[in-house]
Amino acid sequence: MGTREVGLPDRVVGDGLPESVTVWEVGPRDGLQNEASTVPVGVKLEFLDRLADAGATVLEATSFVHPKWVPQLADAEELLAGLARRPGVAYPVLVPNERGLDRALRAGVEHVAIFASATETFARRNLNSSLDEQFAMFDPVVARARAEGLRVRGYVSMCFGDPWQGRVAREQVVGVGRRLLDLGCDQLSLGDTIGVATPGQVTALIGGFDRVDQLAVHFHDTYGQALANTYAALLAGVRTVDSSAGGLGGCPYAESATGNLATEDLVWMLDGLGIAHGIDLDRLCDTSAWMAERLGRPSPSRVVRALRG
Amino acid sequence: MGTREVGLPDRVVGDGLPESVTVWEVGPRDGLQNEASTVPVGVKLEFLDRLADAGATVLEATSFVHPKWVPQLADAEELLAGLARRPGVAYPVLVPNERGLDRALRAGVEHVAIFASATETFARRNLNSSLDEQFAMFDPVVARARAEGLRVRGYVSMCFGDPWQGRVAREQVVGVGRRLLDLGCDQLSLGDTIGVATPGQVTALIGGFDRVDQLAVHFHDTYGQALANTYAALLAGVRTVDSSAGGLGGCPYAESATGNLATEDLVWMLDGLGIAHGIDLDRLCDTSAWMAERLGRPSPSRVVRALRG
Repeated sequence: MGTREVGLPDRVVGDGLPESVTVWEVGPRDGLQNEASTVPVGVKLEFLDRLADAGATVLEATSFVHPKWVPQLADAEELLAGLARRPGVAYPVLVPNERGLDRALRAGVEHVAIFASATETFARRNLNSSLDEQFAMFDPVVARARAEGLRVRGYVSMCFGDPWQGRVAREQVVGVGRRLLDLGCDQLSLGDTIGVATPGQVTALIGGFDRVDQLAVHFHDTYGQALANTYAALLAGVRTVDSSAGGLGGCPYAESATGNLATEDLVWMLDGLGIAHGIDLDRLCDTSAWMAERLGRPSPSRVVRALRG
Repeated sequence: MGTREVGLPDRVVGDGLPESVTVWEVGPRDGLQNEASTVPVGVKLEFLDRLADAGATVLEATSFVHPKWVPQLADAEELLAGLARRPGVAYPVLVPNERGLDRALRAGVEHVAIFASATETFARRNLNSSLDEQFAMFDPVVARARAEGLRVRGYVSMCFGDPWQGRVAREQVVGVGRRLLDLGCDQLSLGDTIGVATPGQVTALIGGFDRVDQLAVHFHDTYGQALANTYAALLAGVRTVDSSAGGLGGCPYAESATGNLATEDLVWMLDGLGIAHGIDLDRLCDTSAWMAERLGRPSPSRVVRALRG
């Protein structure tokens, strides 16, 4: 770990970067749901424990999407029943609809996330609904969750492009985001689901919202842009960044490596920028190396490879 | 290639980014010298031709370092003798010392680069000299090159950290850079040789120099920071960026994957930012996929994997 010492803070004063950032760890949910192999529930629980040990404060634990669509996370109830929740750690879960919310409430969750599309086409493909139908579906989910005292995150997917419509207009994304906030979401996660965005688009999109403190960013590294886009988001004042331990969520050798930004690569940058985040990089790398062994393939995180390869 | 259309320019007006950038392609030199296998001269010549066909305007062609140290480039004379130089394309070569310059001049080059260390330790390890001895060695090289009408680039290596001293002080790097400019170098390439830098350090270092138009940046992606650092450099006004086609220069599966920034990942970002560069991404990806076959391993470039995987 000797080389880590060289990454000391050396920021330009007045650069506009935040003092601290919340790393929203999506590896257990967005990561594992996109891995080819299904991980046993015991391994998932150890993964969550190790991530909390490493200092993670938000762990997106699982999804209540129907197991037919995401068999990797079919064990959501069992996972939450076995989870030793830590004080100071949030364990949000994804809920697709009211049935998912019912399951989540029975499992005792305090924080949920809904997954909306920024585009008409992806809404049709992923949710089998129009954009308006999407909001009609989410309305009772968010209302009930709020009535139950839950926090609600709204994912906005395909914010920068989708595979069918191509480029997505900023106004379209901002409109969808505002509707989610109006429904009662307390945070938006702006997602580059297919990884095509570049930093100028990120700056422009964030500038379209009134309150940057309600925004998180969620980048995929398909075209290698995830960390540069994150840096642009930080410069624009964003203080919550989604990432996946070890870059879980896309096989590095598959045709379309749609993996999430690796938490380790993000943490390396935050450390260098002197931005507080609470995560111990050593322990995190150990955890990702351990999980890579469970999955039988190397981690796509550059930092994990450099330090544990 | 359908997904490329979504990466259209969407910049924030007045963001300070340059209108155009020179991509300094180092794959044939820095890339191939760090690959485990040596590539036949005919393949290198085809590689250079293909890169020029793809629109590259600066191709760092080879090195006149003694073949004992870099056997991969022992064919420098043969390569340059066989090279069909294109109008409008520069073919700089690395020269370590006066003997190297002699060889380069005999081979008819018009543009050379010297490779200096920012740190005392790396000077001792890499050049077997002190920093002062390094400058004494470079003085006649640059003077003769200039007298012969050549352009001279000065690489400054280990600008952000070295494996022995750890962090490198900004003043140290700026001091070394100024001495190279005083010797007669027309451009400095600020190198993060071990890939540890983060964007704030890049902004700070660039701010230490008087003229940003004399600067280029050279990032390695060891810790996944290369493109974020490049974005910081562009925001600071840098208009020459080093990169390596396909990310040549570090095996993605080796313990320390010290590969260069991949030209494709850079080009994707420049296209998205609306910054002109002249390179055709399709042809470049074809070239890198072709070279990856020659090397018998996949390209570490995320873009190449996504589009040609």
